[in-house]
Amino acid sequence: MPAVAIPKSMVALKKTAAAPGLTWRPEAPTPTIGPHDVLVAVTHAGICGTDRHIYEWDAWSASRIPVGITIGHEFVGRVAAVGEAVSKVDIGVRVSGEGHIGCGVCEPCRTGNGHICEKVDIIGIDRDGCFGGYIAMPEDNIWPVHDAIPDHIAAIHDPLGNAMHTVMSAGVSGRSVLITGVGIIGLMAVAIARSAGAGQIFAVDVDEKRLALARKFGADATYQATDPDWPKLVRQETHNQGPQVLLEMSGNPTAIRQGFQTLRNGGTVAMLGLPSKPVEFDLPNAIIFKGATVLGINGRRMYETWYQVEGFLLSGRLHLDEIVTHQIDLMDFERGFRLMQAGEAIKVVMRVPGDK
Amino acid sequence: MPAVAIPKSMVALKKTAAAPGLTWRPEAPTPTIGPHDVLVAVTHAGICGTDRHIYEWDAWSASRIPVGITIGHEFVGRVAAVGEAVSKVDIGVRVSGEGHIGCGVCEPCRTGNGHICEKVDIIGIDRDGCFGGYIAMPEDNIWPVHDAIPDHIAAIHDPLGNAMHTVMSAGVSGRSVLITGVGIIGLMAVAIARSAGAGQIFAVDVDEKRLALARKFGADATYQATDPDWPKLVRQETHNQGPQVLLEMSGNPTAIRQGFQTLRNGGTVAMLGLPSKPVEFDLPNAIIFKGATVLGINGRRMYETWYQVEGFLLSGRLHLDEIVTHQIDLMDFERGFRLMQAGEAIKVVMRVPGDK
Amino acid sequence: MPAVAIPKSMVALKKTAAAPGLTWRPEAPTPTIGPHDVLVAVTHAGICGTDRHIYEWDAWSASRIPVGITIGHEFVGRVAAVGEAVSKVDIGVRVSGEGHIGCGVCEPCRTGNGHICEKVDIIGIDRDGCFGGYIAMPEDNIWPVHDAIPDHIAAIHDPLGNAMHTVMSAGVSGRSVLITGVGIIGLMAVAIARSAGAGQIFAVDVDEKRLALARKFGADATYQATDPDWPKLVRQETHNQGPQVLLEMSGNPTAIRQGFQTLRNGGTVAMLGLPSKPVEFDLPNAIIFKGATVLGINGRRMYETWYQVEGFLLSGRLHLDEIVTHQIDLMDFERGFRLMQAGEAIKVVMRVPGDK
Amino acid sequence: MPAVAIPKSMVALKKTAAAPGLTWRPEAPTPTIGPHDVLVAVTHAGICGTDRHIYEWDAWSASRIPVGITIGHEFVGRVAAVGEAVSKVDIGVRVSGEGHIGCGVCEPCRTGNGHICEKVDIIGIDRDGCFGGYIAMPEDNIWPVHDAIPDHIAAIHDPLGNAMHTVMSAGVSGRSVLITGVGIIGLMAVAIARSAGAGQIFAVDVDEKRLALARKFGADATYQATDPDWPKLVRQETHNQGPQVLLEMSGNPTAIRQGFQTLRNGGTVAMLGLPSKPVEFDLPNAIIFKGATVLGINGRRMYETWYQVEGFLLSGRLHLDEIVTHQIDLMDFERGFRLMQAGEAIKVVMRVPGDK
Repeated sequence: MPAVAIPKSMVALKKTAAAPGLTWRPEAPTPTIGPHDVLVAVTHAGICGTDRHIYEWDAWSASRIPVGITIGHEFVGRVAAVGEAVSKVDIGVRVSGEGHIGCGVCEPCRTGNGHICEKVDIIGIDRDGCFGGYIAMPEDNIWPVHDAIPDHIAAIHDPLGNAMHTVMSAGVSGRSVLITGVGIIGLMAVAIARSAGAGQIFAVDVDEKRLALARKFGADATYQATDPDWPKLVRQETHNQGPQVLLEMSGNPTAIRQGFQTLRNGGTVAMLGLPSKPVEFDLPNAIIFKGATVLGINGRRMYETWYQVEGFLLSGRLHLDEIVTHQIDLMDFERGFRLMQAGEAIKVVMRVPGDK
Repeated sequence: MPAVAIPKSMVALKKTAAAPGLTWRPEAPTPTIGPHDVLVAVTHAGICGTDRHIYEWDAWSASRIPVGITIGHEFVGRVAAVGEAVSKVDIGVRVSGEGHIGCGVCEPCRTGNGHICEKVDIIGIDRDGCFGGYIAMPEDNIWPVHDAIPDHIAAIHDPLGNAMHTVMSAGVSGRSVLITGVGIIGLMAVAIARSAGAGQIFAVDVDEKRLALARKFGADATYQATDPDWPKLVRQETHNQGPQVLLEMSGNPTAIRQGFQTLRNGGTVAMLGLPSKPVEFDLPNAIIFKGATVLGINGRRMYETWYQVEGFLLSGRLHLDEIVTHQIDLMDFERGFRLMQAGEAIKVVMRVPGDK
Repeated sequence: MPAVAIPKSMVALKKTAAAPGLTWRPEAPTPTIGPHDVLVAVTHAGICGTDRHIYEWDAWSASRIPVGITIGHEFVGRVAAVGEAVSKVDIGVRVSGEGHIGCGVCEPCRTGNGHICEKVDIIGIDRDGCFGGYIAMPEDNIWPVHDAIPDHIAAIHDPLGNAMHTVMSAGVSGRSVLITGVGIIGLMAVAIARSAGAGQIFAVDVDEKRLALARKFGADATYQATDPDWPKLVRQETHNQGPQVLLEMSGNPTAIRQGFQTLRNGGTVAMLGLPSKPVEFDLPNAIIFKGATVLGINGRRMYETWYQVEGFLLSGRLHLDEIVTHQIDLMDFERGFRLMQAGEAIKVVMRVPGDK
Repeated sequence: MPAVAIPKSMVALKKTAAAPGLTWRPEAPTPTIGPHDVLVAVTHAGICGTDRHIYEWDAWSASRIPVGITIGHEFVGRVAAVGEAVSKVDIGVRVSGEGHIGCGVCEPCRTGNGHICEKVDIIGIDRDGCFGGYIAMPEDNIWPVHDAIPDHIAAIHDPLGNAMHTVMSAGVSGRSVLITGVGIIGLMAVAIARSAGAGQIFAVDVDEKRLALARKFGADATYQATDPDWPKLVRQETHNQGPQVLLEMSGNPTAIRQGFQTLRNGGTVAMLGLPSKPVEFDLPNAIIFKGATVLGINGRRMYETWYQVEGFLLSGRLHLDEIVTHQIDLMDFERGFRLMQAGEAIKVVMRVPGDK
């Protein structure tokens, strides 16, 4: 039962053809909700690298995205209406949401691992997402946002959760950490690792601007990825043993190989970056002789990661404001994607119009 | 101080040329020992697949083995003499030994992880081994063998430790387990996993004789590796989710890829098998999206694994007699290698001559 | 929507007065269900030690149990009707259920730890239970029972889950285990520990009949609790180091103290037994100097424990038939409690009348 | 072989009678060393609370301390001589040392857990300690101190290791932490927990000066232990759930009970403080229903903790200078003990005379 009348139509950014680009729909139908669902009036939404892939319509997008959907999966908004069986979420509350929607009955779903449910549906990828006036979400996927967290940070809880899950799974407290790839999530990982008690933090990337930001967020030393000596330099900084933790966030085959090579014997690797094709991997030297532990990271833990995000944000020790370099209106989405393509933006957050 | 006079010379199997084969030396010099060392009169020694590589002089052997050494690293014997500063080992005691000799001063060595010391020396590979009348070992690497453990089992504590370290690192209690590759160590892993409380155990190999033995040792179902449907069949046996644990013991690229593909989301992989060259690896589907945990396994934990080996053997619930298919005299080593090459032997244990 | 008409009334065993005893109600009102609830037609229900406390109306019962409720929390039955918003459970399915009903919105509930939700309601204790024709349960608390599991075992999934959670939390694979107290759950723990790969298992109790059963279920040695020498004897059996794991299932202060004293330095304790009053505890010697790890065990993990129970039962390696010593009709409940009080029964399962 | 002549006698603080006080010996015999031992010329030594117990000759001291020994176990110095079989330590190196001397052959000793060896000897307690010109230590217990760590911090590696082991065992990264008791080690724990990435830190003590220092070291809020409302206040600060971690460093029965009561369900407790007599403990509510994990903490891990201490100190993020409130000469030891008794000193470090 909605508190106020829900309009029949809304603005939406849709993938309307199997081709590059997105279509602005000023009068798309507002989503309907089932008995367990919640309708959220979106106020702010973040553009993810995945959205850019869909915008550019790469091979992965062509194989996965159903034409016709509203895209977008990073958001904050207010609960506008709830299904008749909803009991845990109230209208009017400011919320974000977990975009991985599990089947609810399989072993992963019933043991707190819904993020790796084999039948998971992801908003903005497998079903309608948040780049529009409203989004429908199952009650159990709703996350109430604490008052002290501002909208532009609440809007990016999804990637922040990826970074958090990666850092906290690896375990960085008191350990030396190498981060290969400091894009949006890599930069978040630098800041989180610093707050989470990492020892030395090293970051590697090709983009000097991002490396400068990494230092600002807490990296002790940064390296240009094109310098073939960086693995040697990182080992020198770690008593010639290599870092204890590798957070792989580049998906780049060379960086992956160099990262494993640099890692200390007995070290831990958390892998989030996605190589676009199979990587030639020297398993004996990279993993087996080294006695390494490698963790595949997917999504966020439901909902342990979300509590960690809230905890760090409320602690006052995790500062991410500089991650959000641009705030624009949803209508100006073309500019948002151009800023990302040009490497000028780190994170672009879009304001969604409407009286909320 | 030796209890009895140590002869100046001894029999030894040596690598005397950078070429296939081994040389029988009836009068090799007996090793000398330093103040911290123990001289062990070897009574039984096992032939490892690595010894076969050295015998056949493959590319790896040519790159690693110093010509002139006595090879062999699996043994049991009696302490014949001890260095003047030895305080923890007594003459006459029946012992085996940990063949990874760490530097003793690095972080891995000082934290119970000497098996992954970067400067580790391995007996029979980097320095003189046990295929001879005597072997010199540092006091700290000596393992007293319990009276209730027979010689032919004591002689293979080294590979048994590899299998134990793999199984116990992965954690099989109450979990479904897939073992790819049931050579000597894979078969030991089947038996250990059964004793350690595994749920369903599945084994895959090309050799039907070994698959039959795997069933005898506790595998619930076995699959011919050349059958392309085995991953599907294993998934069917596990509520279509895949096994929770993969023990990779083949080193075969196809088996590795199929094993990861079969693994349950959120599952654990322990990798021991060594591919002979880089493997093309679909990291996103094999590890990242799957949320897998991958453990590189090297050697044995010092000395947690050794206590586990003793505990399981003394429990009366781990039966490995059928692993040792042949016991021969050291002089008949050529026959031992031929039995292995022909696939007729699982494990060959050689008796070393002498009055001990 | 029920498949068949649900009768308006049912049989039920109720606590109708703040005094010892239970009342048989032949025409109690059938529970109503909310939109998220499931109505289960109970076919079999187990009597728990807690039910006996309620029957006898001890101090704890008087302080906790609301007069008027139907008691009982161990059951199996068939789904007779589902609320209008239920989507994961079908009518007709044979089910048991998790009796800890969490609030669903707190941190424990949202992170797979609903069993330790601070607002948890327990069936048969805080709200109507299963000693009656029907029980209403939230959809999320329903557990479908595999066809291969017989009714009398399905009926006791609740205590079996307690035992499983205790054993699997402690981690027994390859470790020596001491179990203090082999009542129903202690005996289940012996059988589970054996299946889960424990090394030596030692059991202590005052009741010789139960000790005999413990040996049958897999204990290597058992001790009469009144023999003051048992801690010394257990240490002798473990190379004078003590067992690596203690499963405390007696709640008896002396047994607790002796168990901690017997434990190996660095060992693990899982505590399930409930002392009826504060225990004098020598913290330095029992826990601190010993470097012990102590785990408080409550309920069952939701739903990791349930999958473990299913896995072990389907493996064919966990045999619990002898636990259920008596099967009686619900009407004969007085006899069931007398059998328990007399120490003649281990577990009594009651058949609930009705056409199901 | 010493680099320079070692004098035959030295200064030493000895326990010469079974009564309060310590005796200054200007010409005590210099310790002799065995083949595996190292002779360290002590330059700085810290006074521990345990030393004060020995000084005051309490019941514990009377039952444990052999009259005649040199006391003291916190030190830094230079290697003056090494036994003939010593191979890992060089003369002249600045070192501290692990004061728990294990037997070297038992399971704990051989698995990196020598700190809980049942036959452990502790310097300054079971054998001669460091309050003197020289101390003899086994080679394996020597810890080389990094040049960048100043003497007054190197001298207190022993208690700093206790604090580190407690904090790192509990795991504080991103978790809320309550510390009951902020004496020397509790204050170190506050500083370490802050560096190790703790979320909110709460400290409780009776001493307002120490609470002020706790806030300076990183506590977010502190509470007077005599205020009965502090558990309620801490719960209010943690969304009414209680802190996730309790570091118990008081040994005070009331604080222990209140700490467990305040702890979140599912939380972790690391216990270091030693109650002087048995504590009445409500096990069901404190541990069992709560699903708590309780860790007994003894000494320091050999040598993982030492690497952590070095890592944090070199990171520049752990500042402990204010812990060492007084540096005095060894001869002025009476003043040192008086400062501690008066509550004026946190940590007193004594300079040991001699040309080193």
